[in-house]
Amino acid sequence: MSKERLYLYDTTLRDGQQTQGVQFSFSEKTQIAEALDGLGIDYIEGGWPGANPTDSEFFDKAPKTRATFTAFGMTKRAGRSAENDDVLAGVMNAGTSAVCLVGKSHDFHVTTALGITLEENVENIRASMAYMVSQGREALYDAEHFFDGYKANPGYAVECLKAARDAGARWIVLCDTNGGTLPHEVHEITKAVIEAGIPGDHLGIHTHDDTGNAVACTLAAIDAGARQVQGTLNGLGERCGNANLTTLIPTLLLKEPYASQYDIGVRREALAGLTRLSRQLDDILNRVPNKAAPFVGASAFAHKAGLHASAILKDPTTYEHIPPETVGNTRIVPMSNQAGQSNLRARLADAGINVEKGDPRLAEILNRVKEREEQGYAYDSAQASFELVARDVLGQLPDFFEVKRYKVTVERRKNKRNRMVSLSEAIVVVKIGGEKKLSVSESMDERGTDRGPVNALAKALGKDLGPYQSIIDDLRLVDFKVRITQGGTEAQTRVIIDSEDGAGHRWSTVGVSPNIVDASFEALLDAITWKLLRDGAKPV
Amino acid sequence: MSKERLYLYDTTLRDGQQTQGVQFSFSEKTQIAEALDGLGIDYIEGGWPGANPTDSEFFDKAPKTRATFTAFGMTKRAGRSAENDDVLAGVMNAGTSAVCLVGKSHDFHVTTALGITLEENVENIRASMAYMVSQGREALYDAEHFFDGYKANPGYAVECLKAARDAGARWIVLCDTNGGTLPHEVHEITKAVIEAGIPGDHLGIHTHDDTGNAVACTLAAIDAGARQVQGTLNGLGERCGNANLTTLIPTLLLKEPYASQYDIGVRREALAGLTRLSRQLDDILNRVPNKAAPFVGASAFAHKAGLHASAILKDPTTYEHIPPETVGNTRIVPMSNQAGQSNLRARLADAGINVEKGDPRLAEILNRVKEREEQGYAYDSAQASFELVARDVLGQLPDFFEVKRYKVTVERRKNKRNRMVSLSEAIVVVKIGGEKKLSVSESMDERGTDRGPVNALAKALGKDLGPYQSIIDDLRLVDFKVRITQGGTEAQTRVIIDSEDGAGHRWSTVGVSPNIVDASFEALLDAITWKLLRDGAKPV
Repeated sequence: MSKERLYLYDTTLRDGQQTQGVQFSFSEKTQIAEALDGLGIDYIEGGWPGANPTDSEFFDKAPKTRATFTAFGMTKRAGRSAENDDVLAGVMNAGTSAVCLVGKSHDFHVTTALGITLEENVENIRASMAYMVSQGREALYDAEHFFDGYKANPGYAVECLKAARDAGARWIVLCDTNGGTLPHEVHEITKAVIEAGIPGDHLGIHTHDDTGNAVACTLAAIDAGARQVQGTLNGLGERCGNANLTTLIPTLLLKEPYASQYDIGVRREALAGLTRLSRQLDDILNRVPNKAAPFVGASAFAHKAGLHASAILKDPTTYEHIPPETVGNTRIVPMSNQAGQSNLRARLADAGINVEKGDPRLAEILNRVKEREEQGYAYDSAQASFELVARDVLGQLPDFFEVKRYKVTVERRKNKRNRMVSLSEAIVVVKIGGEKKLSVSESMDERGTDRGPVNALAKALGKDLGPYQSIIDDLRLVDFKVRITQGGTEAQTRVIIDSEDGAGHRWSTVGVSPNIVDASFEALLDAITWKLLRDGAKPV
Repeated sequence: MSKERLYLYDTTLRDGQQTQGVQFSFSEKTQIAEALDGLGIDYIEGGWPGANPTDSEFFDKAPKTRATFTAFGMTKRAGRSAENDDVLAGVMNAGTSAVCLVGKSHDFHVTTALGITLEENVENIRASMAYMVSQGREALYDAEHFFDGYKANPGYAVECLKAARDAGARWIVLCDTNGGTLPHEVHEITKAVIEAGIPGDHLGIHTHDDTGNAVACTLAAIDAGARQVQGTLNGLGERCGNANLTTLIPTLLLKEPYASQYDIGVRREALAGLTRLSRQLDDILNRVPNKAAPFVGASAFAHKAGLHASAILKDPTTYEHIPPETVGNTRIVPMSNQAGQSNLRARLADAGINVEKGDPRLAEILNRVKEREEQGYAYDSAQASFELVARDVLGQLPDFFEVKRYKVTVERRKNKRNRMVSLSEAIVVVKIGGEKKLSVSESMDERGTDRGPVNALAKALGKDLGPYQSIIDDLRLVDFKVRITQGGTEAQTRVIIDSEDGAGHRWSTVGVSPNIVDASFEALLDAITWKLLRDGAKPV
């Protein structure tokens, strides 16, 4: 059976840039465009040339892509010709083979926001589209507020679409600009538009997540016949974001009826890189990845409930709607005090520790974990620390070294130039195989910035561990999370540290104390011990 | 027209606790239950008594609510009677008026996960429901994996539901346990179930967000006839989370056809508290609120695009699908424009500071705030620190005292009894009216527990402020929140401190530094300065 073509149109670089706090640089735009091209997207909307200096520069030096590069703009204003509209000229000058222009289709917006007549607006659409086509461009018309417009005045809304279509637009895109339309309405109205004479294979859908339905509205439009999908990576975009392509792509490739019916241009191999691509975007933007993101989130295949975890052991399909590896994600069976013994055994097996079913030490490990979780430890976010607790109970935790004492000072005072400066210094004393070692470090980084007491302590602890030093030399702290588990400065502090080594392995450890420095130290110590254990260090 | 009743069932305290990294304490469960009750939720699922010590304790001392408290458990196991099933006994002993039991309805799960016959499973469902009803409980049956089960074997799946219904279950809840079902499937299957004889007003829907469609699937089930909605606050829950009630409630109350058709028990006044409630939950969990969350996110009504912002000034309905105040949220327009300044003036007036419209210092305050927010400050959560920034620009911030320097030591070593102990000591030097004052304090509390460096520093700073001492004597720190604003120990640390005085006034201050102790000190200093200002202390 030959599949029907469904086109993907990415607007991460334009509508995605409307996300609060997001402002792409030229090089970030280039990286993202290349990633989108590798994924197999059909159209990449690069920005609004002329409206934004970075966007203009980007189009001047746009990367070569297989995908169709598209410039965004708006239909010409009233009272001038398309040829003489400077905003339109800026868009045309970007020289892309496709151009997407937003225009009005809601009568209220024509009269209130633009302050022109309904007829003038139709003529603006027609003339703008005709001009683009005459210049040899593939023309797209983004019908702003289309669904609200259709509900208010269906005749006028459709007249606007027909003006664009008759002038030669390749695509008419129905936009739910304020994100308030629900899926059943998108379905009905899209169907009505097709019945009114705009063919589905010339219709696109552009939704926003203001009611949490951007993905569902997109699917509803496809079900009704639309054949172009607009969205962004990780659902970036104005307000609550656009339809999330990172969610839609695996749905369209893996779920029926879409999988059998449509060819979306993304190959299975590219799908397996989706999780990495999603994290890459977060890295570029320095955003914390959303753990709960469908398909690509770190928790998307994490099975915390005891009943789930025990069934997963028998057959992963019991609680997984797709195999995590198809999207490049991984299964997590975390520890928590809700877990039963089977969850525990699975977790231990993952760590290479085999304990027979019914071994009384399983109950002992669970008790130890429960006890410590009541004190504030959180082992489902710190599996390396969990493993150390288990090995301790099982008698499989060697004494690599002993920390005799440490001391950290944090000082703030005026420097020679009469400016307030702060500095921390840490001394750590460890005993390794009978030998005492004293290390000292301070909290300044290469640029002379004070990084605080935990940084000083980490550097001192990792400075000289004698025979183990070569193993921990490539250890790097990549994340540090602090949580106060009860109110007041007199509360328990939980610190979770994520560490990484030269080979890219990552592990998480936890420390708890009313003293934040001491909680951090405990987590640091676990991070080092776990690495020594994993790399098979021999205790001296 | 009289509206049909649609029931809301919250499972934040049970399925929400399956979120990776979430573990509610007893007092957190109580706070959340009270908030849910205030919102107008019909059923509050409190947890699984017997499976988890915190859940058992919670049911023992459950808060009095108008909402129906519900205990969760699973149907009895094969080979014993309902009366003799210890897991079921644990659930019954919680003494709630409603009990919800999860059970199988997918043949594959009966044979693979449970390893029993299909008939045994039907009998387990029947007997469990009948037992609960005989004990005078309102009985709910959570049909796990119902949609997958129906697709695999519709006859058996429906047979399971009928067994529960015939045994007297008030509600049959269709669960999409692995979150893989799409909205159109939920709609068709729910309709088929009703046609097969389970009345819609006895049907509930329980969805997960694994394809980003949890909200849409819930709406699809309502459209098909289901009359109970299960979900969680902020969409907490296993893997990608449950259907988000924080999204569904405003949709059902404000959007058609739901608004005219259903009474969901949540009043308009409670809806106006929804944004606050959502943030309260994030505060309890120390999670960063999701800015892009529908309705309640900080960006949900932020208009970044230039075209949007200018239209919003003419008429907010041009780019807003609902008025933000209906859900207790606020519109955000870029700081630089007119609307940004009028927001600022309102906020200053709240603090008793009156600045004329058009005063150039307004722009200066906005710039200062923006600059500092880029560094990591968060003035939305720290109104007192915001006020100090504004007063500084306006020349209304007296120099009460100057901190010349401070020094904190954190030490950990063996004590006389060979046990590791930690201790912090702090020295603070301030200058008040030409006089230097040196204070020292340590981190031990009355019970001899080390409370860490921030505690020592707070005590030293508040020990002797000379002429101001009587004003700050009743100052008390009631909450302390730490957030790392970027990854790595080399990140910025944001500390927010809530303080209280003897009269019960509360205020919040913020400090930011890569050094956690220094960030805390900055917030402490603001807390004291604000109190001196508010109580009209005269600078010496």
